[in-house]
Amino acid sequence: RGAVAAAKEFISKAIEEKLDTEILLSSKTFRIADLGCAVGPNSFFSAENIIEAVQLKYKSQGLNSQTLEFQVFFNDITANDFNKLFRSLPSNRQYYAAGVPGSFYGRLFPNASINLFHSAFAIPWMSQVPKTVMDRNGPAWNKGRIFYSDASDEVVSAYEAQNAEDMERFLHARAQEIVSGGLMVFFIPGRPDGTPHSHTLPNLIYQILGSCLMDLARKGVVDEEKVNSFNIPNYLMSSKELENAVEQNGCFSIERRENLDHFFAHDTVYKSPQLLASQIRASLEGLFKQQFGDEILDELFELYGKKLEEQQSMVESGKAVVFLLVLRRLAN
Amino acid sequence: RGAVAAAKEFISKAIEEKLDTEILLSSKTFRIADLGCAVGPNSFFSAENIIEAVQLKYKSQGLNSQTLEFQVFFNDITANDFNKLFRSLPSNRQYYAAGVPGSFYGRLFPNASINLFHSAFAIPWMSQVPKTVMDRNGPAWNKGRIFYSDASDEVVSAYEAQNAEDMERFLHARAQEIVSGGLMVFFIPGRPDGTPHSHTLPNLIYQILGSCLMDLARKGVVDEEKVNSFNIPNYLMSSKELENAVEQNGCFSIERRENLDHFFAHDTVYKSPQLLASQIRASLEGLFKQQFGDEILDELFELYGKKLEEQQSMVESGKAVVFLLVLRRLAN
Repeated sequence: RGAVAAAKEFISKAIEEKLDTEILLSSKTFRIADLGCAVGPNSFFSAENIIEAVQLKYKSQGLNSQTLEFQVFFNDITANDFNKLFRSLPSNRQYYAAGVPGSFYGRLFPNASINLFHSAFAIPWMSQVPKTVMDRNGPAWNKGRIFYSDASDEVVSAYEAQNAEDMERFLHARAQEIVSGGLMVFFIPGRPDGTPHSHTLPNLIYQILGSCLMDLARKGVVDEEKVNSFNIPNYLMSSKELENAVEQNGCFSIERRENLDHFFAHDTVYKSPQLLASQIRASLEGLFKQQFGDEILDELFELYGKKLEEQQSMVESGKAVVFLLVLRRLAN
Repeated sequence: RGAVAAAKEFISKAIEEKLDTEILLSSKTFRIADLGCAVGPNSFFSAENIIEAVQLKYKSQGLNSQTLEFQVFFNDITANDFNKLFRSLPSNRQYYAAGVPGSFYGRLFPNASINLFHSAFAIPWMSQVPKTVMDRNGPAWNKGRIFYSDASDEVVSAYEAQNAEDMERFLHARAQEIVSGGLMVFFIPGRPDGTPHSHTLPNLIYQILGSCLMDLARKGVVDEEKVNSFNIPNYLMSSKELENAVEQNGCFSIERRENLDHFFAHDTVYKSPQLLASQIRASLEGLFKQQFGDEILDELFELYGKKLEEQQSMVESGKAVVFLLVLRRLAN
């Protein structure tokens, strides 16, 4: 079972089994928001899957789905290329599309205006690098590294705390924006229970990239101070952390949870170091350009491809999980 | 009285006098859409003016405006630079912002989902160049010209017909998208009663640009066939045409109409040929690039600046008007 098919099936079942009929009846417009949409096309597939499932549910209740309209809000940070997103919107889409720029750690939508939130692979991106990790004189200064998973306990704690704070803000904002009874369907790459941060697959990938930067610093190509003050704002939660966040917030029930263990195993990108290097480059290029400039990127990612190849068995030994989660907004 | 102040006053009065209290009470979210927003900042000023006026109205009814939220949809064609728009959104805005790509001659929003539509200076842009004007063997082939106002009767008729069709589609779409009783506030540059197309100020400006292109064609810099097959899809309605369109549609009452005669007269840009040339270049560059390529633009707009200077007294004799219009959605 491929990851795409698994995701589609999860969405369909979640809506079939968990979406309240009252929500379908409460408005003629069903509003969906995808958080962290990037430039498509995955976001478009998700929107289509959701709409198909809602229409099926609508029909199964004996309702006339012709009268139901959909509006999909595509959200990402303001720096996202919304022009590209808009130009690639499917022309035969069955929904009204809108783009919403801004961090999903703050409010994006009016009160009780969204029927269903969706987010795939975006939630690990934190609102910011923890401030203490940026404090050169503090105990969490992350010298010689660009990530938390292979760093000191202080750095790990700072990332943990930032994640907890972010999740609180994330859920607090969504709790206001979603209608009572509304669903949130999330795909969240996480850390498998019992696996240390440093043995988790996506983390390994970032650690190796950090070691490449330090190699370039030793060669004098990159200013070491720039490496010291650079950190990737991404954190993989354990299932316990995720549950705690939902519990702390108190506005949502966990309606369904699945662990997709084999998601990354099926992803052939992890078996091709060159492909992986170019994919990571695509996703991080903006961040790296800001800190290190354009010039070093080619050399950095060439070295990265080589190191990934050398350390391929370590990469493949990394453990990974994707949490598939359905939350429902409790009545106030 | 400057044009900006006049626009603000018109919006404030329209909302104060014409916005039904039921609309304010019907939802906790007041949704505004600006059609043809470009990249701001005028669109942001309009949104702020509208919100300020709605809040005042809300308070004047003894309601607590703290509970009212605003969502503003910024619409323009998909080719618009939404990235620029999003990056320049005021950080202290009092509304949730969304971008909506697509032609306002089709549907953009769910049924009855918008409380107030606004559009400033965008409605003269047609959905397309009339097809008959593009037919090289037909009677409306616009040889040697790029605009209708100085062209044959057949070309003028084709533009008139396209405008009538566009207005029908425009009003039909809005009639479905707006709530019953909702307002539409439009600023529409038009043709003053009794003024021929060719003596209307914005038209004069385009006619002179067309003559520059023909000069370049005669010099062999531009392929004349490219001039023949190029037309600017912009049409200025008379007040009668505007009234007819609203009447034909039948879903809206005209609640208020003002003619701002001095709008262009106050605009110093028309007194500075160089400034005018560069402003027209900014607004048409995309269109011209597509048809004629990058290379001719500098030469074209340098010549344009010169011609505008030579013909400045003619430009200044041009007649202009902006229709300020408030429409209200009638109950079904």
